[in-house]
Amino acid sequence: MVATELRVIYGDTDQMGVVYYANYLRFFEAGRTEFIRAKGLRYRDFEASYQLWLPVTEANVRYLQPARYDDLLRVETSLAEIRRVSATFAYRLVREDGQLLVTGRTVHACIDLKGKLRRLPEALVSLLSAGETLEAT
Amino acid sequence: MVATELRVIYGDTDQMGVVYYANYLRFFEAGRTEFIRAKGLRYRDFEASYQLWLPVTEANVRYLQPARYDDLLRVETSLAEIRRVSATFAYRLVREDGQLLVTGRTVHACIDLKGKLRRLPEALVSLLSAGETLEAT
Amino acid sequence: MVATELRVIYGDTDQMGVVYYANYLRFFEAGRTEFIRAKGLRYRDFEASYQLWLPVTEANVRYLQPARYDDLLRVETSLAEIRRVSATFAYRLVREDGQLLVTGRTVHACIDLKGKLRRLPEALVSLLSAGETLEAT
Amino acid sequence: MVATELRVIYGDTDQMGVVYYANYLRFFEAGRTEFIRAKGLRYRDFEASYQLWLPVTEANVRYLQPARYDDLLRVETSLAEIRRVSATFAYRLVREDGQLLVTGRTVHACIDLKGKLRRLPEALVSLLSAGETLEAT
Repeated sequence: MVATELRVIYGDTDQMGVVYYANYLRFFEAGRTEFIRAKGLRYRDFEASYQLWLPVTEANVRYLQPARYDDLLRVETSLAEIRRVSATFAYRLVREDGQLLVTGRTVHACIDLKGKLRRLPEALVSLLSAGETLEAT
Repeated sequence: MVATELRVIYGDTDQMGVVYYANYLRFFEAGRTEFIRAKGLRYRDFEASYQLWLPVTEANVRYLQPARYDDLLRVETSLAEIRRVSATFAYRLVREDGQLLVTGRTVHACIDLKGKLRRLPEALVSLLSAGETLEAT
Repeated sequence: MVATELRVIYGDTDQMGVVYYANYLRFFEAGRTEFIRAKGLRYRDFEASYQLWLPVTEANVRYLQPARYDDLLRVETSLAEIRRVSATFAYRLVREDGQLLVTGRTVHACIDLKGKLRRLPEALVSLLSAGETLEAT
Repeated sequence: MVATELRVIYGDTDQMGVVYYANYLRFFEAGRTEFIRAKGLRYRDFEASYQLWLPVTEANVRYLQPARYDDLLRVETSLAEIRRVSATFAYRLVREDGQLLVTGRTVHACIDLKGKLRRLPEALVSLLSAGETLEAT
C-alpha cells in the first residue's frame, strides 16, 4: 500500500458543497501514479520504455461520506490483483481525522501502440507486486 | 430510455488522445439530468421543492472503446431499478456510427437536508418509472 | 459570430453554487470549435491536414454575473483579430434570458510539430475571417 | 510570495500532450488557498467568520511553455494589489528545473451573502499584505 496526500480545492467541489463524484477518479489516478513511483517506476517512463499502456477498462467507486473543500485527504493505493493482461488497483480515500470516505477499484488492461492486449512484462509484475498483499483469486 | 447528445471537447481528453476516464461520469450526469427533464421534472426543482437530494452512493463504469476529441456521443440513460430509498440509473454511451463505447451505472440515495435517508416520494417514483422497463430484482 | 448552446451541469459548479471560474474556458473552447466548424472546417482536420496547431498563448476572462446549474448558455464566438502568426478569438457568454454573464478572449499562436511559430495558412485566414468583423489594429 | 507544489496528473492533460489551458486556473486556485493559509487564515474560515466571499471578477493567463504529465510544479502566489473592495493575486508557475511556464493574475471582489460589494475587512488586508511587496498603483 502506498499513501498519497491531497488537498481538496474549490474546483473539485460542486454546488452540493462536496467533492463532485467524478473527481474521486482524479484522486485515484494521483494515488495510482504515486503507487507506481513508490515501487520505483515513473508511469511516463513505463509508457516510453515498454511502449505499453495501461488504460482503465473498469472503474468502481463507493461513496460513503463526502469529502469537502480544503479537506486533507490520504489516498491509500494497493495492487489488488494482477493477471496475464490486466492489473487491478484498490483505493481507500481517508480524511485527516481517519474517517474513510470513498473506496474504489480500477482495472487496467495492458495494451500496445496498436491497442492490442499484451502480456504484462514480468519485470513490471515483480515491481508492482513487491510488498503488496494480493487477493486470492 | 432518454437519449442526450454530447460533443467531446479538447478539455475532456487526456494525453493518451482519448477521453479521460473520470469525464465519462460527467457525461452520465448530463444524461441523468436530461432523463429527469424528459420525464417532466427539472432536477433543480426537485431539490428545491422536495428538499431532498439524490447523491451518488455508487458508480460503476465499463470502458469498452475510447471516445475521442470531437466525437458526437449519445448518452442513453435508463432507470434500472428503484427501491424505497434509492434509485439506480444505467447508461450506454454510443458514438455517432453506432459503436457502443462505455456503459455504466450510478446508484443514488434519497437524503434530506440533514443527510438522513428518506423514502423516495411516490410522485417521483411514478414520474421516473413512466415508460421505463425496470430490471427484475 | 457563431453561437453555440451549452447546458451547465453539476460538474461545472463549485460549492459557491455557481460555475467554477476555470470552466468558462471549457465553454470558450466549445464555442471556438463550433466557430471553426461553422466556417467549414473541423479543428481536428486542420491539425491533421496542415500539421499545425493553434495553442493558446493568452486568455483573459471577465466574470460579470455567475452562471448556475442547469442554465442554458449561449457562447457567442467571434474572430477578433488575425495576424501573421496568431489569431484572437472573442467570447460572450449569454444566459437564456439575454443576460450577459462572461466575456473573454484567447490568443492562439500557429505552431508546427516542432513547436516553431509558423505563418497562418492563407486558406485558413480567409476561411476564419469570412463574415467576421475584425477589429482595427 | 508563497510557493505551493503540485504534481501534474493525466487528468490535467489534453490530447496535445500538455496541461489543458483551463486547468492552470485550478493550479492558481491551489496557490491562492495556500497563500491565504500561509498568512494565517484558512479561506473556508474567512467565508464562515466574515460572511464574505472573494469571487473572481477577472482572470488573465499567459502561457509561455506548456506543463506536462508528471511535472512537479511550483505555484508562486503573491498579493499584487489591494483596494477598497478588491484584491489582485499574481501567479508564476515554475517547473522543477526552474523554467517559468505560465504567469497570471486574478482579481477578486469582496461581496456579502447578497452579492453586494463590501469593503475588505482591515484585519484581512493587514494579514494578506504582511510580507508582500504590493505594486505601486
